[in-house]
Amino acid sequence: MASGTVAGNTAQLTFEELRAALRQVGEERYHHKHPFHLLMHEGKLSRGQLQAWALNRYYYQSIIPIKDAIILSRATDPSFRRVWRKRIVDHDGDEQRNGGILRWIKLAEATGLDRERVMGAREVLPATRFIGNEYLNLVRTRPFVECVASSLTELFSRDLIALRMERMRQHYPWLASALDYFEARLTEAPEDAAFAIQYVFDHATTRAEQDGAIQALRDKCDILWAQLDALYFAYVEPGWPPPGAFRIEDGGKKDEGRRG
Amino acid sequence: MASGTVAGNTAQLTFEELRAALRQVGEERYHHKHPFHLLMHEGKLSRGQLQAWALNRYYYQSIIPIKDAIILSRATDPSFRRVWRKRIVDHDGDEQRNGGILRWIKLAEATGLDRERVMGAREVLPATRFIGNEYLNLVRTRPFVECVASSLTELFSRDLIALRMERMRQHYPWLASALDYFEARLTEAPEDAAFAIQYVFDHATTRAEQDGAIQALRDKCDILWAQLDALYFAYVEPGWPPPGAFRIEDGGKKDEGRRG
Repeated sequence: MASGTVAGNTAQLTFEELRAALRQVGEERYHHKHPFHLLMHEGKLSRGQLQAWALNRYYYQSIIPIKDAIILSRATDPSFRRVWRKRIVDHDGDEQRNGGILRWIKLAEATGLDRERVMGAREVLPATRFIGNEYLNLVRTRPFVECVASSLTELFSRDLIALRMERMRQHYPWLASALDYFEARLTEAPEDAAFAIQYVFDHATTRAEQDGAIQALRDKCDILWAQLDALYFAYVEPGWPPPGAFRIEDGGKKDEGRRG
Repeated sequence: MASGTVAGNTAQLTFEELRAALRQVGEERYHHKHPFHLLMHEGKLSRGQLQAWALNRYYYQSIIPIKDAIILSRATDPSFRRVWRKRIVDHDGDEQRNGGILRWIKLAEATGLDRERVMGAREVLPATRFIGNEYLNLVRTRPFVECVASSLTELFSRDLIALRMERMRQHYPWLASALDYFEARLTEAPEDAAFAIQYVFDHATTRAEQDGAIQALRDKCDILWAQLDALYFAYVEPGWPPPGAFRIEDGGKKDEGRRG
């Protein structure tokens, strides 16, 4: 899967250069620019389209703690594991508080879906499963520092989430009371990203390893992007869900005003 | 991934019932009905769209012998392995003849792509990689008889390929001399399918195992379907290839006449 080596210069990057290279990947590939998100933020998605998004994205959320447990299982340093396990607690919750997965279910319920239907995941797009499995493949098989680097989409998520919350309150006020997931991510994601970028800088000790880490972030961005491609194709334009997948019931699945 | 159990009746299926159940899956989910293939067979794809298809489908072809080698590596019966290894020879070739992979390259070259560009695979859609990896996941992790059953799309491929060859000669005569891949599959696929369906019937000895085999074929159909969804989204409608993927150069990528 990894292929990209930054051509030319082969000197090791400083921390600032590495951060700039990672941010460059985000500019080019992070899904904040995906047309599905643009429609969402312009208030142009129907309730049915938001249901399809919440249902499929729930499946993705549900594999994140599994992804983090795989990383945990490959970490040989207890101090790394102590930091990383926070991610699993953040998603799965503990005695004191709900985790991100339950908060996402609250969001999905606010779109009008039953909890059992969301958690059963029988109607998710096959592409959503393939993409989830791809992320699990990545953290099972790639060099450890690349697995950590693949989490660095969190460098970009705060801005996207802040914008999304603002626009959801504006365009979909019936969702406004169900945004706890995003509220929590506003602080969790930057904390996690700060640790991960420092780890990548400290442990990718050659330019080749740094390039591998940058490529892993590129691959992770491709995973997020492909997820929205599949949603757009199935539920916006042309609007063809594959056999067996969730179908929008309210008839308002299309926004005829947008054509690429 | 497996979830579907045929509801109700739990008696073991006869050979004819099993074949009928598998054919039913094909009717519902095989990609002969996918809109991308319908456009292809109606002569409505541009040369650039056929390039995108050939380039991405080459990547899929290139992993098929790897898939078959994984199945070979899990087979404990030498007589099974002797039969199954034919598939690897069919794709990779031997001293006497080219294999399917080289024949596919010939097809891709006929669309106007350089061999190196096709084999380098740097421009394939991320979704194409994810889908290829999903097929490899399946044969690595599922019960052995389900891996064999996942090949049973070959029950349906002869009719699709025969139609495709006829329509390609009619609509894209500049491809007519490069259809050797399909010519070979007309005989290879039915031979392979006949062995595989008999194997599945003989070795799925409970109704639950039979249901698992049927589900594996469903999952394989979803893999093929998702591949064409990704091509359609990137190169037909709306026609948005993801960052870094192959882009059509000739400007004729859209067929404005089709909208779902």
